Amino acid sequence: MNEKKKDTEDKIVLLSHGAGGALQEKLIRFITKSAKLRKIGNGIGLDAYDDGATIPLTEKDSEIVITSDGHTIDPIFFPGGNLGELAATGTINDLLMMGAKPIAISSTIFIEEGFSFDQLEKITTSFHETLKDNNVALLCGDTKVLPKGNLDKIIMSTTGIGLKKDTLKILDSNIKIGDKIIITGYIGDHGSSLIANRKEINIDTTLLSDLHVLSPIIKSIPNLQDINAMKDPTRGGVSAALNNWAQKSNVSIFLYEEKLPIRKEVKAICEILGLNPLDISNEGKALISVDRDHADQVLNAIRSTELGQFAEIIGEVREENQGKVLMKTKFGGTRFINMPMGEPIPRVC
Amino acid sequence: MNEKKKDTEDKIVLLSHGAGGALQEKLIRFITKSAKLRKIGNGIGLDAYDDGATIPLTEKDSEIVITSDGHTIDPIFFPGGNLGELAATGTINDLLMMGAKPIAISSTIFIEEGFSFDQLEKITTSFHETLKDNNVALLCGDTKVLPKGNLDKIIMSTTGIGLKKDTLKILDSNIKIGDKIIITGYIGDHGSSLIANRKEINIDTTLLSDLHVLSPIIKSIPNLQDINAMKDPTRGGVSAALNNWAQKSNVSIFLYEEKLPIRKEVKAICEILGLNPLDISNEGKALISVDRDHADQVLNAIRSTELGQFAEIIGEVREENQGKVLMKTKFGGTRFINMPMGEPIPRVC
Repeated sequence: MNEKKKDTEDKIVLLSHGAGGALQEKLIRFITKSAKLRKIGNGIGLDAYDDGATIPLTEKDSEIVITSDGHTIDPIFFPGGNLGELAATGTINDLLMMGAKPIAISSTIFIEEGFSFDQLEKITTSFHETLKDNNVALLCGDTKVLPKGNLDKIIMSTTGIGLKKDTLKILDSNIKIGDKIIITGYIGDHGSSLIANRKEINIDTTLLSDLHVLSPIIKSIPNLQDINAMKDPTRGGVSAALNNWAQKSNVSIFLYEEKLPIRKEVKAICEILGLNPLDISNEGKALISVDRDHADQVLNAIRSTELGQFAEIIGEVREENQGKVLMKTKFGGTRFINMPMGEPIPRVC
Repeated sequence: MNEKKKDTEDKIVLLSHGAGGALQEKLIRFITKSAKLRKIGNGIGLDAYDDGATIPLTEKDSEIVITSDGHTIDPIFFPGGNLGELAATGTINDLLMMGAKPIAISSTIFIEEGFSFDQLEKITTSFHETLKDNNVALLCGDTKVLPKGNLDKIIMSTTGIGLKKDTLKILDSNIKIGDKIIITGYIGDHGSSLIANRKEINIDTTLLSDLHVLSPIIKSIPNLQDINAMKDPTRGGVSAALNNWAQKSNVSIFLYEEKLPIRKEVKAICEILGLNPLDISNEGKALISVDRDHADQVLNAIRSTELGQFAEIIGEVREENQGKVLMKTKFGGTRFINMPMGEPIPRVC
C-alpha cells in the first residue's frame, strides 16, 4: 500500500472498512475503543467480538444471548431472497451460531422518502414470515424516514435475543487443537449470485443466494457439547471467519483444497472477476469446529439433512503457525489464506 | 388533503411518515402488520407499541426490558450534543420510561464511505461516555459502510436492555382517570434549537438541545408504584405523546395552557416558523402520569433535582372526550390538541 493510500485509510472511512476483513476489524476496534463497560457479570461481552453477547441470569442454568446486525444490500430484491428475509435469517443464524435458541427480535428500519409501500410490504412480509417459521417474536422496533437522497432506498437493523444453557461454550475463542472443521455446504453462492446480477456486471447465471436459516443443521447435531465453535461465514467469507477463529483461539487452521465444496458457477464467476471463493459471503452456511472424536458422527448427522447434504470436513486445527490459516493445494503445495482486506463487492449482506 | 396527495401518501413513503405523528403510526402499523409472534409469555410485546418490550423471567420477580431506536439527525453535531450522545441518551431514557434499570446496549452503526474518523471518534466517544456515566454496558453491535452517496454521513441504531420489577406497570395504556400530568421542564428546546441552526433557516439563538439522561428525575420519585405512565416526548413532541396515551388508555387529557413551561426563545422560533411548541421534539424531558393523591409529592421531589427544577403539573386525566387531548387556553376557551400529522422538521431525533 503506498503512502497516500495509507494516509487516506487513516483519515476517512473507506468501503473496504465495511467488508468483513482486516480493515473492518480496525474500524470496529476504532469505534468501540472508548467503550468502558463491555460485559455483564461473567457473560460474553464486547471483547469477545463474537456473533452475540450473553446476559447471565444468575439464578438459573440458562443465559440470555443478544446479537445485533445491520442489513444493507444492493439490490434489495436478489436471486433467492430479499432484504427482509436476509435480516431475519442473519439474526437467527447468529443466535444459532452461539448455541442459543432464538426467541425474540427487535427491528429498526430506515427508509428513504419516496420508497414504495409495495416494495416495503414485500420486505416486511418476508421478514415476518421467516420469524414465524422459526418461532421468533418481534418485540419492538423503530422506524425512521430520511429525506430523499440521504439514504439509498432502505436499510434494516435488528437485535436478536436467544436463550442458551450456560454450560454450552460455542465461541470463536474456544477452538481446540485437533478439532475438525466442517462446512455445511457449497461456498460463495450468496456473494457470487449478487455480484453476477449487478447491472454493471451482469453475468448470465441461474445461481441463487444460499440464504437459509441454519436450524435444521443445529437440530441434527447429536450433542452440542461436542462443538467448540460455529460461525456463519457472511461478509469476508470463509477466509475471514477462519482467520478470526485462528487468531482468537491461538491455533492454526489447515484446509484441504480438494474438499472445499464450490459450485462450478461460483468458480466461473470468481475466475471472470478475479475473486477468491473463500473470500465471498455466504448466508446459509455454517463453519463448525468439532471435537475430532465426534467429527464423523456430526458430519453424517448434518449430511442427513437436506440443507446439509453437501457438508464436508474441510480442514483441521493445528498448533504450528499460530493465528494463521493455511491450505494444502491440490498440487501438493501449502499456502496461507489471508484475512481479506476488504471484499470487492460492497453491500452484499 | 386533495385526491392526488392522498394517492401519493398511500403509494410511497413520505417524510411525514417518519415524523412521530399520525402518519408515523400508519407506517409502523403497515410495517408490523404481518408480524405473527408479537410477545413472549405475558410480557409487553409489539402491540403495546410502548417505549420497549419485556421478556419475563418466569422464576424471578424481575423481567428484562428491551427497546430499539434508530438515530438520524441533521446536523450530527448540534448545539448541546451530537449523534452519539443522542443515541445513548435516547435509549437509556426509553428504558427509564418503562421503570427499568438500564443495564446493557447494543449498537449498529451505518457509515457513508468517506466519513472522517475524526468525526466518528467524537461521536463514539460521546456515546461511550454517556453509557459509562449511566453504568450501561455495550455488549455487541455491527458496523456497515455504504458506498458514497448511498447514505448521508452516519446513522446509528441501538437496542437497550434493562431490568425491572415485574410488579411495576408504567405503560402508555395504564393512565387512570384523575391522574395528574407532570412535565419535568421546558418544552421544545431540542427541536427548536436544531431547526434554528439549520443552514437554510439560520435564526440567531443561544438555545441548546435539552439532551439529558432522565435518571435524576426517576431517582427522585419516592415510589414508582404511584406512576401510571412515563414518556419522553421526542418526535412529535408533547402532542404526539399525550394523544398516544389518551388513545391507548381510553381517557382524555386536559391541559392548562398557562402551566406549560416554554422558553421565550422557543416561542419566538415557533412563531417565526409557524410551529406549535407542543409538536416539537424534546430529548431530556419526561411526561409523567401520576396518581392524583401523590401528584404534589412527586412534583416537589422532581423539582428538588437540578434537571427537574422547572417541572409543572400541566394537566389532568378525564373521562369525557375519550382518546382526545384538550387544552384550556389562557383566554378561557378550550381547543383540541391533535396528533401532529408529521413534524415539519425532518431528522431532529
